[in-house]
Amino acid sequence: MTPIRRSPKRGGIDLGGTKIQAIVVDAQNTVIGQARCPTPHDGGPEAVADAMAAALREAGSSAGVEPSSLRGVGVGSPGEVDAATGAVSNAKNLPAWTESFPLGTKLSGALGTRVAVGNDVGVATHAEYELGAGRGHDSVLGVFWGTGVGGGLILGGKQWHGRGSAGEIGHMVVKRDGARCPCGNHGCMEAYAGRSAMESEARRRVEDGEHTDLFKLMAKHGKPRLTSGIWERALDHGDKLAEQLIARAVKALGAGIASAVNLLDPEIVILGGGLGVRFGERLSPEIRRHMEKNLFDHEHPPEFEVAALGDFGGALGAALLVA
Amino acid sequence: MTPIRRSPKRGGIDLGGTKIQAIVVDAQNTVIGQARCPTPHDGGPEAVADAMAAALREAGSSAGVEPSSLRGVGVGSPGEVDAATGAVSNAKNLPAWTESFPLGTKLSGALGTRVAVGNDVGVATHAEYELGAGRGHDSVLGVFWGTGVGGGLILGGKQWHGRGSAGEIGHMVVKRDGARCPCGNHGCMEAYAGRSAMESEARRRVEDGEHTDLFKLMAKHGKPRLTSGIWERALDHGDKLAEQLIARAVKALGAGIASAVNLLDPEIVILGGGLGVRFGERLSPEIRRHMEKNLFDHEHPPEFEVAALGDFGGALGAALLVA
Repeated sequence: MTPIRRSPKRGGIDLGGTKIQAIVVDAQNTVIGQARCPTPHDGGPEAVADAMAAALREAGSSAGVEPSSLRGVGVGSPGEVDAATGAVSNAKNLPAWTESFPLGTKLSGALGTRVAVGNDVGVATHAEYELGAGRGHDSVLGVFWGTGVGGGLILGGKQWHGRGSAGEIGHMVVKRDGARCPCGNHGCMEAYAGRSAMESEARRRVEDGEHTDLFKLMAKHGKPRLTSGIWERALDHGDKLAEQLIARAVKALGAGIASAVNLLDPEIVILGGGLGVRFGERLSPEIRRHMEKNLFDHEHPPEFEVAALGDFGGALGAALLVA
Repeated sequence: MTPIRRSPKRGGIDLGGTKIQAIVVDAQNTVIGQARCPTPHDGGPEAVADAMAAALREAGSSAGVEPSSLRGVGVGSPGEVDAATGAVSNAKNLPAWTESFPLGTKLSGALGTRVAVGNDVGVATHAEYELGAGRGHDSVLGVFWGTGVGGGLILGGKQWHGRGSAGEIGHMVVKRDGARCPCGNHGCMEAYAGRSAMESEARRRVEDGEHTDLFKLMAKHGKPRLTSGIWERALDHGDKLAEQLIARAVKALGAGIASAVNLLDPEIVILGGGLGVRFGERLSPEIRRHMEKNLFDHEHPPEFEVAALGDFGGALGAALLVA
């Protein structure tokens, strides 16, 4: 039998709560094609898998590559990922995705090539370690500040997954008995810093009579929620409530990151995620200051960098799964 | 040249802020001799090293072994340890020990055998992993609840030291802008749970007019501070202030341990240290309950055990350094 000749090119798909980002990369991990679409809200995992396959086909088309000729496609997914089978369950930010769904098998069938599935935050941290701000470091703490706050760990040059659920930096307690978190616990870092929790708090304060232009800006720009772009516009307008809630998030991030650094003493902290990338330049000096305030060893803070791979980080990390 | 014939026996010394524990073990790590003495408060590192050598000689004598015939002596020390040279600096719980002091070299000269020095909490965690409650586990979070709260990490079967300062679980922030910690920061777990911080808080509350028998019990039993034994007696007497401060410590321990578990997802948490061993039976159900309350993954809590090696854990871990 003639072996099937595969291109050295690979695909990567980052599955987020709001959007799906697909890319095709060459052997040097250069992005040669990309496509992005919203994550479907109806139709459950089947609809999401269909949209993912379509996005990857479109990325392939823009790179002039048939998906079936790719060496493979990697996927970074939220929820609980079974790396061995490609099944995903409890994808909390995605609608109607509690039961296990065979995402890898489904996509492999649709695209005609092998598919590997990993945890979204884990693959994004790995991408920064291999190709981005973490290059040359042996230990990396990735902090992904977006809808929630996720964490990725590289320790001694290897990803650390614990029993499969490590990296939940967003659920480190920064204020015992504090604000209720979307996870149901109290005082988690994410209860103050997650985009979703921040939006809920803004709504509560508006109900209590506080003023803000956040929701006007949201309506004006036709957004269904307070996106990172809306928060940025509100800050640019000097919106007091937005400033207060961002300052509150920054303090929680600083305390939570410091806690993780005190425990693990990594060489570098990398701030990514939708809000992290959007606000990296603007807010990382303040986040860093609040982190350093809470370090045990004030004389040896870790390096602190914004994710270098930006919006493609998750998809690049996914593509590394099939490298 | 005839090689020097060394016994397979080894020594171990646990250097604590209040006491020095020395042991001699055989090839099976059975303790065959031991001695304990108070840590000298005057004379700085030189006096401490002299007391350590004397304690090890006494342990050797009770085991019928000359120190110079031991295969080696391991030391678990607080502060910053340079494992390569055996030098120790910034031993915060020990008086007048800020500058680097060549503890390993000094002891090696005094005892006539090689000496290896490691971090006290790190070696105690390693002992539990090799010989105690952590046997058979791949990842261990050791929590040493005593004068301060120290942490030790075994990840993937290996100790994790980060850049040299990992494991400061006592300085994870459990209440942002909370109580002042002996380290100078605010809201650390140790600010609520460390024996030293608890004693300071008890004194403050007495000055504010609250009633307690803690200090009467301390005087009655001739103790210079509120030892774990004094706290236990006060609880046995139903002392309200003692109950409140212990409950506060338990909540902080639960939140901080949960934060570490959410980040690392270890197989087992082991509670050791002076207070941890003393109160393990009595309080670990409550500590565990507060930990589980703050876990992100409520369905998969780690195992939770009290240190199995008790008071000898630190010295046994030290002896493993020269195994």
